Amino acid sequence: MTSGPTRPTGSTDSTGPGGSGVPDVTLDDVRDAARRLAGAAHRTPVLRSRTLDTRTGTRAFLKCENFQRAGAFKFRGAYHALSRLTPEQLARGVVAHSSGNHAQALALAARERGTRAVIVMPADAPRSKRDATAGYGAEIVAYDRYTEDRAALSARIAQERGLTLIPPYDHPHVIAGQGTAALELLEETGPLDVLLVPVGGGGLMAGCATAATALAPGIRMIGVEPEAGDDTRRSLAAGHRVAVPVPRTIADGQAVETPGELTFAINRRLVDSVVLVTDDEIRAAMAFAFERLKIVVEPSGASALAALLAGRPEPLPGPAPARIGVIVSGGNIGPDRFRELLP
Amino acid sequence: MTSGPTRPTGSTDSTGPGGSGVPDVTLDDVRDAARRLAGAAHRTPVLRSRTLDTRTGTRAFLKCENFQRAGAFKFRGAYHALSRLTPEQLARGVVAHSSGNHAQALALAARERGTRAVIVMPADAPRSKRDATAGYGAEIVAYDRYTEDRAALSARIAQERGLTLIPPYDHPHVIAGQGTAALELLEETGPLDVLLVPVGGGGLMAGCATAATALAPGIRMIGVEPEAGDDTRRSLAAGHRVAVPVPRTIADGQAVETPGELTFAINRRLVDSVVLVTDDEIRAAMAFAFERLKIVVEPSGASALAALLAGRPEPLPGPAPARIGVIVSGGNIGPDRFRELLP
Repeated sequence: MTSGPTRPTGSTDSTGPGGSGVPDVTLDDVRDAARRLAGAAHRTPVLRSRTLDTRTGTRAFLKCENFQRAGAFKFRGAYHALSRLTPEQLARGVVAHSSGNHAQALALAARERGTRAVIVMPADAPRSKRDATAGYGAEIVAYDRYTEDRAALSARIAQERGLTLIPPYDHPHVIAGQGTAALELLEETGPLDVLLVPVGGGGLMAGCATAATALAPGIRMIGVEPEAGDDTRRSLAAGHRVAVPVPRTIADGQAVETPGELTFAINRRLVDSVVLVTDDEIRAAMAFAFERLKIVVEPSGASALAALLAGRPEPLPGPAPARIGVIVSGGNIGPDRFRELLP
Repeated sequence: MTSGPTRPTGSTDSTGPGGSGVPDVTLDDVRDAARRLAGAAHRTPVLRSRTLDTRTGTRAFLKCENFQRAGAFKFRGAYHALSRLTPEQLARGVVAHSSGNHAQALALAARERGTRAVIVMPADAPRSKRDATAGYGAEIVAYDRYTEDRAALSARIAQERGLTLIPPYDHPHVIAGQGTAALELLEETGPLDVLLVPVGGGGLMAGCATAATALAPGIRMIGVEPEAGDDTRRSLAAGHRVAVPVPRTIADGQAVETPGELTFAINRRLVDSVVLVTDDEIRAAMAFAFERLKIVVEPSGASALAALLAGRPEPLPGPAPARIGVIVSGGNIGPDRFRELLP
């Protein structure tokens, strides 16, 4: 494996791509995150399946972040962000708004780091997600999705209580943490031709692209979005961040209206393309994962696998099957919801 | 890890335990099987779960044979048995009677070794299992469960066509193959205090106990049977093989009426105890595996995990949590059946 970075490394305070003024994230930042995560995050397994290889005509390597602590890759970024706080910040605590995997991840990471998390959640969030978040010891502040602005609410809580806001994706430490998934994958597999990564806010992709393009310069970084939430694909085409209507998709973790500022600046530079999958293709991938891989994957977590199974991207030309990495990003779905969704 | 065997090694032709006249199986046999399986069988991952550790007060290591090829540990024994056939035997083909995981495993192993398998299956076997077995290229011979003797039928087919019969558990090469699961587990974890192994016909246990007691002399080997299929527990208590009525349990892979002759001779010597689990405990373990571990486990495959979750065996005394290995033995269950079974 090529191990040297192909572009200058620097701290997260350096000015980023295109002179945008936003901080950059480098392979060194991802490596530093990996050191901080050692012993705290799981080094998740990479699964192979001959059935999958045969069906897709590829050699596929599935990085199973559904086995990550708190059930998704989000723990990497949340824990890493907390590990970079000052003792004073850590003593005061953190706040985030999320009804999904970032909430659970931050709650668990806060407990592990000996601090407290306040999670701003919609009052009508699923009980299972509230229970899981509360179960990790977080304080939940409910808000009304129809009348209150969650960003303003969490900013106010941060201000009033002196808490540090930990955003779900648009933060260099969060991005560097997520990138450790690709770092581990490439350490285990060696060079890959393609890496398929689910894209919501773009933090996982930004981190993975940072690590993967530095470690394997020829790699094609391909993002996967649900058809209804194609904000990053549209933004890349437009050359600037655009917003889409509130996405209606089963892939709730990817139901994002516009890319993050920092994540988009990175992805614009490092991502080759974004492909789309339908909800039915996601359901089929969840069923395949259950029946053939014996793993539980939530809809957002299955989108990159769905793209591979649907033949998107098209097979690479060449004598040998392409070596394709696939991030299976999360598995937080209860049996009841799973039953509803499966084809 | 202690790596030296604690008892004389020998070939599988040596006279076995207690002068029974049945062939013995040794650590060397398991190691030889591991060499033959390298590159053919998956080296399955060992999963950890802090939730599981916290709930059970142990340090648990789950050897996930649900990720094995054809979805269960059975591939190890079937492939190893085929690898020991002569070229002439291999050219003629093999036969087995099974409606479960041994059928699929042998069908796949036969395809891999370039030969053909005939599988004798009840005419009313689930279509999914027939399809999977046929999908691996096996010839299926249906019989009437109510009027025909499957053992006699497969023996007749073997004789008439010159095929080699590959039994599901009561064979030294099958046992040695299954033992590679424990060999891999202990290589990865180092010494364990306890190893929990599902017991049906006893082949997985006999192989695992052979490897584990030689590698880690202080280890306690604990078998797990469904309450309704406690033939090995009763046989160990009686000191000889006894039969139970046809077991009614969701753990179809463990619905065995009496232990194998060779497996019992080995297990009698090496197994410390057998604990029982109810079908409801198995269902709860399947749900835990789905929700917390994100893995799909069939009922028989979940029985050892069920025992751990149910506090059986009782916690070992001592200052540190016991290090407990758990064989998660298979994951062949469709989504529909899974929905029916889940609590």
